[in-house]
Amino acid sequence: MSAVIIDGKAVAARVRADVARDVAEFRAATGLQPGLATVLVGDDPASAVYIGGKRKACVEAGMADLHQHLPADTAQDEVAALLDSLAADPAVSGILLQLPVPRGLDGSALVGRIPPGKDVDGLTTASVGLLSRGEPGLRPCTPSGILELLDAYEVTLEGASAVVVGRSELVGRPVAQLLVDRNATVTICHSRTRDLAAVCRGADVLVVAAGKQAIIGADAVKPGATVIDVGMHRTEAGLRGDVDFDAVREVAGKLTPVPGGVGPMTIAMLLRNTLLAARAAAGQGVNS
Amino acid sequence: MSAVIIDGKAVAARVRADVARDVAEFRAATGLQPGLATVLVGDDPASAVYIGGKRKACVEAGMADLHQHLPADTAQDEVAALLDSLAADPAVSGILLQLPVPRGLDGSALVGRIPPGKDVDGLTTASVGLLSRGEPGLRPCTPSGILELLDAYEVTLEGASAVVVGRSELVGRPVAQLLVDRNATVTICHSRTRDLAAVCRGADVLVVAAGKQAIIGADAVKPGATVIDVGMHRTEAGLRGDVDFDAVREVAGKLTPVPGGVGPMTIAMLLRNTLLAARAAAGQGVNS
Repeated sequence: MSAVIIDGKAVAARVRADVARDVAEFRAATGLQPGLATVLVGDDPASAVYIGGKRKACVEAGMADLHQHLPADTAQDEVAALLDSLAADPAVSGILLQLPVPRGLDGSALVGRIPPGKDVDGLTTASVGLLSRGEPGLRPCTPSGILELLDAYEVTLEGASAVVVGRSELVGRPVAQLLVDRNATVTICHSRTRDLAAVCRGADVLVVAAGKQAIIGADAVKPGATVIDVGMHRTEAGLRGDVDFDAVREVAGKLTPVPGGVGPMTIAMLLRNTLLAARAAAGQGVNS
Repeated sequence: MSAVIIDGKAVAARVRADVARDVAEFRAATGLQPGLATVLVGDDPASAVYIGGKRKACVEAGMADLHQHLPADTAQDEVAALLDSLAADPAVSGILLQLPVPRGLDGSALVGRIPPGKDVDGLTTASVGLLSRGEPGLRPCTPSGILELLDAYEVTLEGASAVVVGRSELVGRPVAQLLVDRNATVTICHSRTRDLAAVCRGADVLVVAAGKQAIIGADAVKPGATVIDVGMHRTEAGLRGDVDFDAVREVAGKLTPVPGGVGPMTIAMLLRNTLLAARAAAGQGVNS
């Protein structure tokens, strides 16, 4: 039996439509427009593409595009000053500093200037601390997008055995926290895990964010399990993930494709975070 | 075969002796004395006992006891003002606000005023974020004490299967992070975990911080595994832990007793954190 293919494009489109509707309601109720300040330093072509996609989505959702572009040779304290002024600007609901920043700049110190209430990427130390303590806050986009996919396909998390492959700050660690918060029993695997396939075969829900192409084959998947593939690798045959899709689809119950699985969720969750930040700033409840 | 009993008192005494020696060296080298400001609001008898033990240990290690006692009816902003003045005082290396604070005070907001460099309890959102991101910072005392015990008994963590029972902010979550950082494959269990005993039987290293007496029996322990019991329950028969000691000692390879296992480590690690904070403040490298 072949797995149900999780349609990330469709779920992302639904989230984005919901955000657009909620933004319209928010504007009607408050007279305020949520605004996203993307900040790009320099002219890295890949970063320019990513930022372009985020800005376009922001406008399509009815939010203000408050993009800031600085030359590659901008000094650390000038970037910091810009971030501080965005932090203080009530028109700015969310701030996203596109990484990596050019050589010579300390990206981590710059990200640290973004206040938790405007941290729509959910990646500052303060936001990570709030997540880890289970306190309200803006959650990182890819991990919360994964939870959104699981919910959209009605995957049971309560009491489920979840295995996360990869322990990155960006995906592995935060998604493990979110799964624990949803009452899954969570195992975190990584490059030093012994007999990875055997550990993964215990999973009802398997999230793979290892950054290694096709590291998960059919032997690592319990029949009927839900498999979320966060990997993204350019190959001669096109984009591929961390999961051997053709093999695993014959075993898994539900499976994300690459592309079209987790990928589209990241921008959708960024838009939702920007709306949540705008609501919280307007006193409409806590963002979480 | 009966398990090796892990002697927490002996390991804690060794850590405290090491700290005392290092404090003497630090004082000789810098002319500065590390100081711990314990803060007690009100007269809860149990809190008074805990604070008393910490102050005594602090003096024995050659550090300054900068204890502050406020009446139970102190207003939130007065406690906050005291914490701010301690944060600004160069004689204060570490600040510990004893919890719980009296009704009417917001303990979480008060703890949040302690800067990460003086957070010797390692429990503020900022410190939790640093731990979660794997960045240098002061780590919470009980979890780092558990790692100290495992190292003292030469328990292999690299590639080991570790199971943590309990997902509290104080112990379960941070100890899981520390074990992941040490390259263990870590599973986090909790009250909603299905077939807890079966999951625990997969552990080479089992850390039990469930807060339920004798929740772990011999059927939940792999022969030869190392078992760390963080529980502490007063019973008619004396202090007991989360582990059924008499049954598990026949199966485990190494096992902490209650009392005399994890308990003594907490103050020892608090003293070490205070020294690390003093060193970092004096520019002697990063605390971690």
